[in-house]
Amino acid sequence: MSLHYPNGQSYQVKKQTSKSQTSQKTTVFGKRGMHLEEAINQSNDYYLAKKQAVIYKKPTPIQIVKVDYPNRSQAVIKEAYFRQASTTDYNGIYQGYYLDFEAKETKNKTAFPLRNFHEHQIKHFEACIQQAGICFVIIRFVPLDRIFLLPARHLIDFWYSQDLENGRKSIPLATIIKNSYEIKQGFNPAIAYLKSVDQFIADLKLKE
Amino acid sequence: MSLHYPNGQSYQVKKQTSKSQTSQKTTVFGKRGMHLEEAINQSNDYYLAKKQAVIYKKPTPIQIVKVDYPNRSQAVIKEAYFRQASTTDYNGIYQGYYLDFEAKETKNKTAFPLRNFHEHQIKHFEACIQQAGICFVIIRFVPLDRIFLLPARHLIDFWYSQDLENGRKSIPLATIIKNSYEIKQGFNPAIAYLKSVDQFIADLKLKE
Repeated sequence: MSLHYPNGQSYQVKKQTSKSQTSQKTTVFGKRGMHLEEAINQSNDYYLAKKQAVIYKKPTPIQIVKVDYPNRSQAVIKEAYFRQASTTDYNGIYQGYYLDFEAKETKNKTAFPLRNFHEHQIKHFEACIQQAGICFVIIRFVPLDRIFLLPARHLIDFWYSQDLENGRKSIPLATIIKNSYEIKQGFNPAIAYLKSVDQFIADLKLKE
Repeated sequence: MSLHYPNGQSYQVKKQTSKSQTSQKTTVFGKRGMHLEEAINQSNDYYLAKKQAVIYKKPTPIQIVKVDYPNRSQAVIKEAYFRQASTTDYNGIYQGYYLDFEAKETKNKTAFPLRNFHEHQIKHFEACIQQAGICFVIIRFVPLDRIFLLPARHLIDFWYSQDLENGRKSIPLATIIKNSYEIKQGFNPAIAYLKSVDQFIADLKLKE
């Protein structure tokens, strides 16, 4: 079951654990029909269990208008609206470092469209980088089955260098490959993105 | 205008700009009828604007069951339920440090009841401390109009040392005063909790 949000993203409702799923043994999450968000959440669960990092996806912000109380035990929200998030989706801590990132999938094969981001997310990245946060975007090119960790400063540079009035509002794949760390896909964790974070941090230290 | 705090220091308060509010000269947020959560959110807005820190309250987690689309522009959530949060309410970054905290008010005058916390929040604090996060609780004793920053390790110690089967499940005020950093109240920010965080970090460094 999936719900569709106004921005075109789908909201995956967790399936209940069932025996029918145990036959799926392939390791690459894309081939298991898993979306990037699920793969990251599963990886975060793994990292938490292994005491390697504490990273969570923030809940979707909701404006609640009406709540009913049919009985004492549970409140039911009867009217509410999706609000636009003022930050990125994921943050947390890894070996003393503050991590802050957004995850996006694209069906595009040659470029990543910047319409996937909002101005306030760019501002949020800038504010976090100023506080010495480790900020990045995890981008999955679905048709290519490739996932990249792109440091946020490249996104920011590209955001401001673009003439947003003309038609070209995307980062070419070649630019992403040049400035990113490619993320390995596996079974557990589904995407080993902290290995790419290690490389990113090592490169940041070289520049200090 | 300056306010005198118990420790003898004075705090300069900026005058309000709105004419309609000029008759209100009290500066302590409790006397303006503001709740702790609002005071922290206002302070976080201030710290963000001053480029001092990037701290947000996480949205309330909601389990969405039914969404209607009365028109193309907006989705309406028609059935949803509150879920229990798996982490604390606030996190973010301050000068390279990952901050993670929970805020609680109590009408109690002599102790802080531990029923305000859940097991998973204690576990979350333990996991973040292990990653070198700066973890704490902001506790407001409403009748006393005093606010404390209690390092999470004291909460954790107290949580496990308590015999949770007997009746006494609260931290005495004297214990909180002994192990906390008292937070100054003002106008902007409403609570200058980062000053207490500075003291907390300085003390942590002394122990290294």
